[in-house]
Amino acid sequence: MDKITSIKNDKIKNLRKLYQKKYRKQKGQFILEGLRLTRGSYNAGANLDTIYITKDFYNNLIKDEAFLINNQDKIVFVSNKLIKEVADTENPQDIITVVNEPNFNEKQVLSKEYILILDRVQDPGNMGTIIRTAVAAGFQSLIITKGSVDVFNLKVLRSTMGAIYSIPFIKDVDLDKVKAMLNNKKQYIYAADLNTEQYYNELKYKRPLSLIIGNEAHGIREELLDLANQKVKIPIRGDIESLNAAVAAGLIMYEILR
Amino acid sequence: MDKITSIKNDKIKNLRKLYQKKYRKQKGQFILEGLRLTRGSYNAGANLDTIYITKDFYNNLIKDEAFLINNQDKIVFVSNKLIKEVADTENPQDIITVVNEPNFNEKQVLSKEYILILDRVQDPGNMGTIIRTAVAAGFQSLIITKGSVDVFNLKVLRSTMGAIYSIPFIKDVDLDKVKAMLNNKKQYIYAADLNTEQYYNELKYKRPLSLIIGNEAHGIREELLDLANQKVKIPIRGDIESLNAAVAAGLIMYEILR
Repeated sequence: MDKITSIKNDKIKNLRKLYQKKYRKQKGQFILEGLRLTRGSYNAGANLDTIYITKDFYNNLIKDEAFLINNQDKIVFVSNKLIKEVADTENPQDIITVVNEPNFNEKQVLSKEYILILDRVQDPGNMGTIIRTAVAAGFQSLIITKGSVDVFNLKVLRSTMGAIYSIPFIKDVDLDKVKAMLNNKKQYIYAADLNTEQYYNELKYKRPLSLIIGNEAHGIREELLDLANQKVKIPIRGDIESLNAAVAAGLIMYEILR
Repeated sequence: MDKITSIKNDKIKNLRKLYQKKYRKQKGQFILEGLRLTRGSYNAGANLDTIYITKDFYNNLIKDEAFLINNQDKIVFVSNKLIKEVADTENPQDIITVVNEPNFNEKQVLSKEYILILDRVQDPGNMGTIIRTAVAAGFQSLIITKGSVDVFNLKVLRSTMGAIYSIPFIKDVDLDKVKAMLNNKKQYIYAADLNTEQYYNELKYKRPLSLIIGNEAHGIREELLDLANQKVKIPIRGDIESLNAAVAAGLIMYEILR
């Protein structure tokens, strides 16, 4: 197999497009950079589409790496220079992997007993950490509204530590759709909100439930907040305005599944 | 007052040095970039040393900003071009502020009932978020070991959201010193550790106490872990290896102060 060295190669042109959210959505694919993220994602259940790798790196890894051994037909050799040109990471390792998006339908998400709804969470680190914590706490599905950071953004993927492959989710859901979903399901809706007197740890949570977590600066949109059966807040003792969104989400989710 | 435009000006040379940890430590000073961080830090109690600002930005702010009104003698006018040359932020606002480190002694830190010990926490976002959460939860002082990320790193300062000014702490404490401190104080020592059977939420915490949180990848060093009276872990339900360090710290701290 020859290696690709030109950035004008059609495969490479397509690969580069996947660095934009628009094309990721269109193709239903996203990108991983580096060995650790590719290996971890494969082990967590990611469906690899293409592995762009240098011949040297491949030769060093092929004896031990299951994701390479089991995906021989998906390997494309490229030059080290080309990886450097394409990759986001400053000193990338010699591997970039294209992954097919997991595909879940509304029913798979809505049938669960513990659903997390993320309303316009913006920070990639927060988004990834919340998803990782949700899976660890025992939440069973995710609804991510339109206006949230893309879960297939590389920074989000790194922060999830593989959790995105083990929980059904739907994303880019617009406000009316979320409202319709919530209205159509018999459940209790909880919302993290600073403007309530109800502390999160002085409550008996009813099931099935959805928990809504909002934007870091602006919280949950009024129209969604209005659907909540119960708002909850976390006590803050020191001279601090609020908690980090991922920490707050973690506290409430672990309390619910205590 | 004339404005400084040259990067070779002695004041600017000193300012630039403060972007390195070594000089921050030597000078006992650190840097803030941007209006929000300077305002928030001032309101939280930061002791401003010098405010480098453009004349235009100053004129726009002087009527409303307490930190400018109350620190007229600390203002140095600089050119917009100079700020851009010096700042870390990609599109910096026209203000860089030098702050004098808060100064705490060992006794102020060790006399508290709830002490948090951070052993080589590396990620700036985690460090800042843990400090913010510690203050919010009600922890009263911090010991930060040598090998941890500098708490006066700009990214850490941004993540603390001002919390660093409202909790006594000592930093750069070497391992032997921490051990001596812990041995000399009558207290219960708890440690977050994956290798224990004790869940954090099935325990009655005794006081006064110290809680140790370790490095993101390697946990707490063996020599510190050996001093713990009780190790605790957080239950993890999904196919996840561990929680983010800041989320884990938040869960345990809030449980202790429940």
